[in-house]
Amino acid sequence: MIVVMRRGASQENVQAVVERVKELGFRPHLSVGEERTIIGVIGDERTLNENVFRLMEGVEKVVRILKPYKLASRDFHPHDTIVPINDISIGDKRVVIIAGPCAVESREQILETAQAVKEAGAHILRAGAFKPRTSPYSFQGLGQKGLELLAEAKAKTGLAVVTEVMAPELVPVVAACADILQVGTRNMQNFSLLHAVGESGKPVLLKRGMMSTMEELLMSAEYILSHNNNQVILCERGIRTFETYTRNTLDISAVPVLKQLTHLPVLVDPSHATGNWEWVTPLSLAAIAAGADGLLIEVHPHPDKALSDGDQSLRPERFAELVNKARAVALAVGREL
Amino acid sequence: MIVVMRRGASQENVQAVVERVKELGFRPHLSVGEERTIIGVIGDERTLNENVFRLMEGVEKVVRILKPYKLASRDFHPHDTIVPINDISIGDKRVVIIAGPCAVESREQILETAQAVKEAGAHILRAGAFKPRTSPYSFQGLGQKGLELLAEAKAKTGLAVVTEVMAPELVPVVAACADILQVGTRNMQNFSLLHAVGESGKPVLLKRGMMSTMEELLMSAEYILSHNNNQVILCERGIRTFETYTRNTLDISAVPVLKQLTHLPVLVDPSHATGNWEWVTPLSLAAIAAGADGLLIEVHPHPDKALSDGDQSLRPERFAELVNKARAVALAVGREL
Amino acid sequence: MIVVMRRGASQENVQAVVERVKELGFRPHLSVGEERTIIGVIGDERTLNENVFRLMEGVEKVVRILKPYKLASRDFHPHDTIVPINDISIGDKRVVIIAGPCAVESREQILETAQAVKEAGAHILRAGAFKPRTSPYSFQGLGQKGLELLAEAKAKTGLAVVTEVMAPELVPVVAACADILQVGTRNMQNFSLLHAVGESGKPVLLKRGMMSTMEELLMSAEYILSHNNNQVILCERGIRTFETYTRNTLDISAVPVLKQLTHLPVLVDPSHATGNWEWVTPLSLAAIAAGADGLLIEVHPHPDKALSDGDQSLRPERFAELVNKARAVALAVGREL
Amino acid sequence: MIVVMRRGASQENVQAVVERVKELGFRPHLSVGEERTIIGVIGDERTLNENVFRLMEGVEKVVRILKPYKLASRDFHPHDTIVPINDISIGDKRVVIIAGPCAVESREQILETAQAVKEAGAHILRAGAFKPRTSPYSFQGLGQKGLELLAEAKAKTGLAVVTEVMAPELVPVVAACADILQVGTRNMQNFSLLHAVGESGKPVLLKRGMMSTMEELLMSAEYILSHNNNQVILCERGIRTFETYTRNTLDISAVPVLKQLTHLPVLVDPSHATGNWEWVTPLSLAAIAAGADGLLIEVHPHPDKALSDGDQSLRPERFAELVNKARAVALAVGREL
Repeated sequence: MIVVMRRGASQENVQAVVERVKELGFRPHLSVGEERTIIGVIGDERTLNENVFRLMEGVEKVVRILKPYKLASRDFHPHDTIVPINDISIGDKRVVIIAGPCAVESREQILETAQAVKEAGAHILRAGAFKPRTSPYSFQGLGQKGLELLAEAKAKTGLAVVTEVMAPELVPVVAACADILQVGTRNMQNFSLLHAVGESGKPVLLKRGMMSTMEELLMSAEYILSHNNNQVILCERGIRTFETYTRNTLDISAVPVLKQLTHLPVLVDPSHATGNWEWVTPLSLAAIAAGADGLLIEVHPHPDKALSDGDQSLRPERFAELVNKARAVALAVGREL
Repeated sequence: MIVVMRRGASQENVQAVVERVKELGFRPHLSVGEERTIIGVIGDERTLNENVFRLMEGVEKVVRILKPYKLASRDFHPHDTIVPINDISIGDKRVVIIAGPCAVESREQILETAQAVKEAGAHILRAGAFKPRTSPYSFQGLGQKGLELLAEAKAKTGLAVVTEVMAPELVPVVAACADILQVGTRNMQNFSLLHAVGESGKPVLLKRGMMSTMEELLMSAEYILSHNNNQVILCERGIRTFETYTRNTLDISAVPVLKQLTHLPVLVDPSHATGNWEWVTPLSLAAIAAGADGLLIEVHPHPDKALSDGDQSLRPERFAELVNKARAVALAVGREL
Repeated sequence: MIVVMRRGASQENVQAVVERVKELGFRPHLSVGEERTIIGVIGDERTLNENVFRLMEGVEKVVRILKPYKLASRDFHPHDTIVPINDISIGDKRVVIIAGPCAVESREQILETAQAVKEAGAHILRAGAFKPRTSPYSFQGLGQKGLELLAEAKAKTGLAVVTEVMAPELVPVVAACADILQVGTRNMQNFSLLHAVGESGKPVLLKRGMMSTMEELLMSAEYILSHNNNQVILCERGIRTFETYTRNTLDISAVPVLKQLTHLPVLVDPSHATGNWEWVTPLSLAAIAAGADGLLIEVHPHPDKALSDGDQSLRPERFAELVNKARAVALAVGREL
Repeated sequence: MIVVMRRGASQENVQAVVERVKELGFRPHLSVGEERTIIGVIGDERTLNENVFRLMEGVEKVVRILKPYKLASRDFHPHDTIVPINDISIGDKRVVIIAGPCAVESREQILETAQAVKEAGAHILRAGAFKPRTSPYSFQGLGQKGLELLAEAKAKTGLAVVTEVMAPELVPVVAACADILQVGTRNMQNFSLLHAVGESGKPVLLKRGMMSTMEELLMSAEYILSHNNNQVILCERGIRTFETYTRNTLDISAVPVLKQLTHLPVLVDPSHATGNWEWVTPLSLAAIAAGADGLLIEVHPHPDKALSDGDQSLRPERFAELVNKARAVALAVGREL
């Protein structure tokens, strides 16, 4: 941590900061420049509040030097984390495809979709039983019944299952069915939920908040990792910007940046990012080209009848084409699919 | 709802949409323009998914006409909602001041602050017992012990208390102490929590998500209102933008806009909006001038020792000055304080 | 400037940075922490490119310590700059009101509006002769003819005039009529234009870019100031965010922040910020309460006939009410109007 | 255009809108819903101001139906525009690579870089002679001398040249040297400049404003196209968001969206989007996978000595690797390079 003094700060101001640094058990390191004096604070700054210095007389600003996360950082864990889900390895050479409808709507719908995505080459089934919806008047998911139908689809197809959990008290019931617990974009900073999924010991798919920086995403991962649960999979799904033509703006740069900052696997969800099925395939290819470890794709046998997110769902035959194209790009960048 | 056909959509495309409108129990209304045909869908569109039309052949886009919320709307409830908290009325002529530290840190700290803000003219005490923190390494609040200290401060000063609840299972325990349940910015779309506070029957202070639109804020209010809990108080607390000089960007326009769209009271939290105590007073005055029904202000007796948000906390004597200035502006715009 | 080395950077890496610092004529200052070594670069960093260090082996990041502007900074010019326009002083105790239509549309329109805003209490007349419009199919302003009509309105009413200049080659012709040259939001970083208005020696009203940070605004002011033209007036007019209910988001915090960072006067334009006349009055009052030195308000005698920006224009009688309310708030915060 | 009446608007209000529609030469089309009456306005709405209706009594909002651009739209020009530059075709099957330094800095630098990018497989040379810089204290480009050096590099290598023009009066001098005129991100809405490059008849590379929507980009293209200059090439180069880890956020979705909306070629500039050379290669591959017609890449023989944008510049040998990888991805998606 570096404390920058204001131009014209007095000798007493500087001395007071130096004393405070020592009091707190850190080592001060003074550097007198032409316009500003700066004071280095030597020690593990993660345990320090900035305001212990920022509010002192004569201080202009405080700059942090270290990254605020440790467990999620490559600095302390240089090798890629690979999360095994049955016989699938997320974060390894193979690009993993997770597909399925936004929500479980009926027995026919989920069984038909699960079979179709499996045939098209998907490795894992996704579908929501509990649905976070902006409007109280929208379909809220089948809940427990949805979980049972997911379990049936899993038994029939052999596909592992990822589904969202929205509240801490639901973690046990969702964990009983799901192979991966999904924390949704609106819950990325629901810290009670992060504690609960951390404790569960289950693999967690952590979606980036639509309003969250990459650093905040890694801090939320840190919450889970700090419960000795190191099976965390990150997912970029679009952020909110001023552009309204797409539902969100896919932050494709997050793929190489996160792969550099952290050892955790990074997936991309182009369906939620664009909100429009017509752009899902090109963005899927872009994600793989950028280095993503996998994709989350919404597929529905009858998108115009879907109870949620129909606009962005691919029909099974279009999804099959996507997988073929994705395979070609994966090979071109030295991956498999 | 209006369905806009693509330029060059065929007669069959148009007819198919018209048939679908009828099937769904709505009335179609055709309008043939020079470049586009548009089809009005007459009926309560709130129960309709857009994708039932958007994915049909020849459709370019679907435009909603109605606001998606009803209970929160002035259209259906033209008079201001006033939320009574003991002898204070939020949403009435008097501008209400809610003040206190970010977090309860100790018995001395909360009792001293409560007394100080009361003397300076605050009407309600705020302080967090459960704290949502970006980092797992930051102070997470005193929890249950914090609630007990808050109850003591309340008993000693007679001030009503607002404090945050972070998870549905904590609603009963927080409601036992608090006069108002706060739903924080990161939980504005934690729908499980919205259900739980709705069910509680307690007044709810709903903070706008830092990256949520006003419409989404009103939809979250609608969740609470739909549980027959109409004591909802909205709070603008800054949104996330590209500007980094302030912690968030206070959306001051939200005050007159929300007052026009909804009957619910609207408060402003300038402390979180700016993240810097130096700008809290001018923004407080701006909020009152813009028509806010009250303020949430962070006050701490020793900001440089605060365990959270010290940078944005006012010392009690500065808070007292703020209240005096706020009173002058309140009078200038026809309010009281 | 501070150079932060990566965890694990070698002794050679550190030494190479130290040598480079010396080569460039600066003094290095080494500080060895627990996880990172950091190197202070002592001297005027404004003349240094960050990449001279950032691209060296073992460097993690480079942090600037100084503000990048000097002439605009209070550090070097602590007293408020006051810009005299005839008998009006912008930046002094009196809150200045600048009002008029978006564009000069006709002789009747501009003369009628000028007279009306003068009677209502405006100090300066605003209106565009050259209009930057998003669409080539929209009204582009009357150009030279508009300037002549403005000159006539000025002669008739005695009001000083501010109008926009869009291109360097138009500076002389606009300067011949206008008392203040306006640089519009889309041209805040049109550096050729900034040079030209700087050279003109005329007072300049510099509007913040709708997606520019405050620091960038001050850097654009620095361009003008560096031509020995110190009559620069800043104007916050709303920034672009994800919120779509208002046309832009008025960044009210910019008022106290800019007043702290710079000695230049700061105005607010609530008309462009909201895009809706209904919210212009509350935001005007908020701006004054926050400490703005003046307002820019769009007024049109017949908003529904306006060729541009009618939605956000006030009728003269509503503008007169605004001025009265603004006066009350100005007095409440120790200003005059 | 559709006029939506407020709930409870009177019969007179509706009738007044209908009359106004007719007066303006359009045809009204009335549709009475359960909560709202809406009035379709039939005719070419591009010539209408929304406020002619929005400000009428009883009107809630006005919704545009048509896209505001025509010449840039696929609706009126379904086939891809291909812009020929000597023997290169931009917008055709071949992915075009434009590469070079941010700025011309010296004879050696530009000749060495031009030769290197040519050998690595670039088709066109890019470099700035006139540089828009945020700070007046930064290197502003070599100006006329830079153009002469570019002309020499062009003569020596046979590469076509693209360079930025910053002001209308410089268009002739830049056009004398450049094969393509670049309009930079800060000038996307410099309408005087758009007129001038439109008039020049030269191919124009129009970079998306960092703060501009895709629709605004297309409106700026429309300005150029409306001068009968149809050689417009669009370029996505990152937009400004709340994320600070990258310099801007590459809006990769803009590629498929723009390709759908318009017939103009779409390039991507990953160097400016990320601001860091380490992420340029993965984003280049992503851009091609998403369907971009080409890339703009910054290359510098000695990035740590670069006078601008060194951080994001690739060394020639890394650029050569990028081209090889890009070729593999181009083939995988059915393109050439």
